[in-house]
Amino acid sequence: MTESKTGIKSLEDCLEKYIPKDELKEVKRILYGRSDERSLELPEETRKLAENINLELKGYSIPAASEELRKPRIVRIGAIQNAIVLPTTDPLDKQRDALYKRISEIIKVASTANVNIVCMQECWTMPFGFCTREKYPWCEFAEDAETGPTTSLLKKLAKAYNMVIVSSILERDSNHGDTIWNTTVVISNRGNYIGKHRKNHIPRVGDFNESTYYHEGNTGHPVFETDFGRIAINICYGRHHPQNWMMFGLNGAEIVFNPSATEGDLSEHLWGIEARNAAVANSYFTVAINRVGTEVYDHEFTSANGKPAHNDFGPFYGSSYVAAPNGHRTPGLSRTSDGLLITEVDLNLCRQVKDFWGFRMTQRLDVYAESFGKVNKLGYKPQVIRENDTDQEL
Amino acid sequence: MTESKTGIKSLEDCLEKYIPKDELKEVKRILYGRSDERSLELPEETRKLAENINLELKGYSIPAASEELRKPRIVRIGAIQNAIVLPTTDPLDKQRDALYKRISEIIKVASTANVNIVCMQECWTMPFGFCTREKYPWCEFAEDAETGPTTSLLKKLAKAYNMVIVSSILERDSNHGDTIWNTTVVISNRGNYIGKHRKNHIPRVGDFNESTYYHEGNTGHPVFETDFGRIAINICYGRHHPQNWMMFGLNGAEIVFNPSATEGDLSEHLWGIEARNAAVANSYFTVAINRVGTEVYDHEFTSANGKPAHNDFGPFYGSSYVAAPNGHRTPGLSRTSDGLLITEVDLNLCRQVKDFWGFRMTQRLDVYAESFGKVNKLGYKPQVIRENDTDQEL
Repeated sequence: MTESKTGIKSLEDCLEKYIPKDELKEVKRILYGRSDERSLELPEETRKLAENINLELKGYSIPAASEELRKPRIVRIGAIQNAIVLPTTDPLDKQRDALYKRISEIIKVASTANVNIVCMQECWTMPFGFCTREKYPWCEFAEDAETGPTTSLLKKLAKAYNMVIVSSILERDSNHGDTIWNTTVVISNRGNYIGKHRKNHIPRVGDFNESTYYHEGNTGHPVFETDFGRIAINICYGRHHPQNWMMFGLNGAEIVFNPSATEGDLSEHLWGIEARNAAVANSYFTVAINRVGTEVYDHEFTSANGKPAHNDFGPFYGSSYVAAPNGHRTPGLSRTSDGLLITEVDLNLCRQVKDFWGFRMTQRLDVYAESFGKVNKLGYKPQVIRENDTDQEL
Repeated sequence: MTESKTGIKSLEDCLEKYIPKDELKEVKRILYGRSDERSLELPEETRKLAENINLELKGYSIPAASEELRKPRIVRIGAIQNAIVLPTTDPLDKQRDALYKRISEIIKVASTANVNIVCMQECWTMPFGFCTREKYPWCEFAEDAETGPTTSLLKKLAKAYNMVIVSSILERDSNHGDTIWNTTVVISNRGNYIGKHRKNHIPRVGDFNESTYYHEGNTGHPVFETDFGRIAINICYGRHHPQNWMMFGLNGAEIVFNPSATEGDLSEHLWGIEARNAAVANSYFTVAINRVGTEVYDHEFTSANGKPAHNDFGPFYGSSYVAAPNGHRTPGLSRTSDGLLITEVDLNLCRQVKDFWGFRMTQRLDVYAESFGKVNKLGYKPQVIRENDTDQEL
């Protein structure tokens, strides 16, 4: 279930393997902003535990300059990518329990490396069955954001490990007509539910016709204040919308997670671009997380691409990574295996980059608030200049 | 004046040189969205002329699917990157004339390959002397957008070669107090001045403290309707502002040029990200153009980075490229030499990608018009959710 169609484990592995040392430095500088990434030394215990459960483990550090009036604000971010554990045809409770077990194990590994905030992929409690467009059994996975079984489980882990947990689930809102939402829950390191965010932008693309199940989110662009920084969540397809990223930044986010489920043919060439561009444009850290493996469904389905019906969805290409406000980034996790990426960052870098580049100072928000408002009117006439126009006034 | 500090000619050259064929296909697919770029066959005459004037020449093709109800709209885009020709200490008229000669030659080369629209780098008529923060002699290069010598020269070339020309200059507006602007002029293929756009976002970063010379532009986000598609210009630092890219898209742009002047230490790792991300986010083509070479100034200057005063500015790293709405991109021109990149595109790809990804349909512009408006108020309270908040209403 976790095999890729293609042969390379990750882009970085391939570059390292073939390009001579001196040129590799240049390639990395141009591609990633650093001649060599800074590895993070992880405890032996962490390495052993990861090995025991067949988990790829990578650690990197993204430092900031020291300041005179502020202490460093060092935070360890854990990004988890994984394949589903059991076949999509198994009883739902067994499928979910197997994922609960797997993720609990991985979070434990993270805890031994003192990870402060951990985030899983989109809808981590289930296969990404929306490709089938069948309502059942997938809707059964939906649960209450605050009191459902997933949040209940994670509250215990969060408290036990003193860890903020960012958990993407399928939400069922029984107070509003049993509606379903694509939602991320944030749980504090004291084991309390802090709040939730609902996916703002919903795709209607090929296998991702998710509007069949849930609507555009109505929770705005919240930033969650935690002991380890101000965090926000841009769920999956929202990463294609720069203005979505921007609003989280305007609300003060220092780390924005992008829990995703996306596959190779569709978006692999965009994966390294979008979350990283957002980190730069908004002077915050981004954490892009994608599941791995191919999921096989009981009933065949079509993908709106003219090809015959089939039962497989994927492969999802993993490649989870962290990007920094200065445009540096970590290498990605593998394209094919479960993995935990631990990145130690100094949140002070966000404000340092703001001061350096000045994007917030120069962004002219008034212009865009007004322009977007005008564009949004039905009668909007685009600002088009034609040859021989005599009046080019705005 | 055109030497780079570093050894590799371009990222793509290095990848091609070392990575075996099969893996290279995968690397290119992940990095650029295609296993192999499609070269464009160029006339022998074009190749010879380019060789004669020591000009790197590259040609690529980015096709679209054929449609039943629309014919293909094939356009050849020329992107020119170059070093200044004479030392910055030579008489200004000689410096400018040498650039006029060089660019006229390159445009002639482009004409033999039937290029329809050509664009030069930012402030192509002069060295990028703003690093000195000295007003003279640099302000002397400023000229009238419509009637100045540069536009006058290019109107002739545009008409002779049936080519739209996009020309970035330093503008002097004598009708408004002799103010100076960083401006791009668009000239039609009939040799007529169509209009101008002034740089919307002005940097205050290191050697790029350009607000010393000109203010944020007051020309909105115009799109110029030409015989070869609807085009717009996002000048240099504006590429860091996603909302600037977005407004050109909302006004209907199909190709957005990004004439730039930027150097390695500052931005080379961002160069491949930003214009390409904009192409994807806005479903249009982007053309990122950067000068090459190191410019040496008569008086030493400091770069606000704690390092000693010096006389050199650069190297500018070239690497001009074209990105498509589907995220594919051409390889870049070299990091060190004058070059002409010819890219044949089918503009139909823009609407095809809009239909496929649906970013415009799902962008929720009303939400952002309102949100940006609120953020812009002095008393704005960011949407922050804290542990134990009881009221999470918007």
